[in-house]
Amino acid sequence: MRTVTIKSPATVSNLVCGFDILGMALHEPFDIMTLRLLDEPKVIIRNKDQFGLPTEPEKNVAGIALLSIVAKMNNKIGFELEIEKHIKPGSGIGSSAASAAGAVFAANQLLGNIFDTDELVQFAMNGEKLASGVKHADNIAPCLMGGVTLIRSIHPLDIIPISAPELYITVGHPQIEIRTSDARQILKKQVLLKDAIKQWGNVGGLIAGFLTGDYDLIGRSLEDVIIEPVRSILIPGFNELKIKSMEAGALGGGISGSGPSVFMLRKNETTAKAVEKAMIEIYEKIGTDYHTYTGPINKKGVEVVN
Amino acid sequence: MRTVTIKSPATVSNLVCGFDILGMALHEPFDIMTLRLLDEPKVIIRNKDQFGLPTEPEKNVAGIALLSIVAKMNNKIGFELEIEKHIKPGSGIGSSAASAAGAVFAANQLLGNIFDTDELVQFAMNGEKLASGVKHADNIAPCLMGGVTLIRSIHPLDIIPISAPELYITVGHPQIEIRTSDARQILKKQVLLKDAIKQWGNVGGLIAGFLTGDYDLIGRSLEDVIIEPVRSILIPGFNELKIKSMEAGALGGGISGSGPSVFMLRKNETTAKAVEKAMIEIYEKIGTDYHTYTGPINKKGVEVVN
Repeated sequence: MRTVTIKSPATVSNLVCGFDILGMALHEPFDIMTLRLLDEPKVIIRNKDQFGLPTEPEKNVAGIALLSIVAKMNNKIGFELEIEKHIKPGSGIGSSAASAAGAVFAANQLLGNIFDTDELVQFAMNGEKLASGVKHADNIAPCLMGGVTLIRSIHPLDIIPISAPELYITVGHPQIEIRTSDARQILKKQVLLKDAIKQWGNVGGLIAGFLTGDYDLIGRSLEDVIIEPVRSILIPGFNELKIKSMEAGALGGGISGSGPSVFMLRKNETTAKAVEKAMIEIYEKIGTDYHTYTGPINKKGVEVVN
Repeated sequence: MRTVTIKSPATVSNLVCGFDILGMALHEPFDIMTLRLLDEPKVIIRNKDQFGLPTEPEKNVAGIALLSIVAKMNNKIGFELEIEKHIKPGSGIGSSAASAAGAVFAANQLLGNIFDTDELVQFAMNGEKLASGVKHADNIAPCLMGGVTLIRSIHPLDIIPISAPELYITVGHPQIEIRTSDARQILKKQVLLKDAIKQWGNVGGLIAGFLTGDYDLIGRSLEDVIIEPVRSILIPGFNELKIKSMEAGALGGGISGSGPSVFMLRKNETTAKAVEKAMIEIYEKIGTDYHTYTGPINKKGVEVVN
């Protein structure tokens, strides 16, 4: 096989209390990428979208990820990548992770699946580092593996798939851009121990809620006393979105990744649509452009098209 | 019923990464307490052990807990409590929690089980506050409920029982006393966000390990980058105990509560005994007096004797 086309989905990272460790894959939106194997050690990138991302491979998250595979293959191969992004950069739903994870997944297909998931995550994290300044895998892992994933540790890499009950995710994406690197800089380097204790209590509760299918516990655990109070000020209408979504029946939710997207969880699609309607009313009132998506958890993650 | 005798077990709190939120009940050691219902609003305490704990109810953790039940009952009743402690105070295996939880459990028996577990935890936490200066439930909850418990939140109280696979606990207790209140004072009020992230990654891993019966994951998650580095310096032979226990096959472990006791987990009793032997060799070498216990998780918690 010399060419493969894949679709690489958006993801919600952090899941409120699990900053840098939890993530979940969506069905929509997704990027389409076509990768071609070359016999020369180079990476060529062609953008087929309107986002104007860099085509120099060392300035492109997918390019960096592919370059690390080229190096791993002792510079005996190269890649030509065509990207049609639908996940807007800076949206908080894992746009850079979809590029990096999609590229390495496609490369692995062309190379006969010689790399395991941990290796693919490592390659893709090189791309994430370019985007956010920090190696993190909380979008990459769910993008590659689907479902809900826990990054117990980055050094050494330890990814735990977490099975979850049926859940519908509603994402609201106001059309402003927040750069992940900026959203990281406003965080304090130190946190109060008492706040950290609350946070890891909620992480424990959320994992237990997923694994035992306890919806109420999932809802109660979706609380963030550390990151949300700082980052939510960057997000238009955040408090009202949360209040109205809860009134519409959401189990809970919060900032998706570093924002500006927000997400809410619900048990079934009908009530999730009510949550989406509540979000839309607020975006309309604020007068910001927006997109919304509602769907179940994507259990597959990135996949070959056709 | 005017009189009841109960046994109230020791507990291991924190479970390494889960400071203030996780705990587990042991079969041994345990305190024996006999409680008698009185018609007057007073609490009388008689010690039948050698520890010389205060008998003034407002200075005794069991006394405080019982006084809060007397107040709740509008001062229409009182209690006479006889305590035969076997869990040494200041041992790090929930001595004060056993007193407080045992007393309120016994009182509830005499009153016809009118209080639910959350109410009993609230009464008993008044006793814990006397002992450590802070209301916490990570020993009280497993002492009352048995098994492994997660305190997702104290305000409001939210206790989650966590089912765990078969596990053997080995506890080593060097005969020195560390006061919980002192062990709290040496902790920093602030922690690095990057350390907190590691800690909640491990909490997530440990909960997932328990609920899915993944022993390796339990072992990998028993890591504490925040509390252990500070408190372990108070504990004789800590680093060597940990290294030798791991060499003897322990999945992992660390400080029990605020120490000086340490605990290690193992899949089966035979290898747990090997861990116990490794601990004993170190205590003998150091020349400190010690007790060790090995047994499975206590699934029942406090219970009526005959």
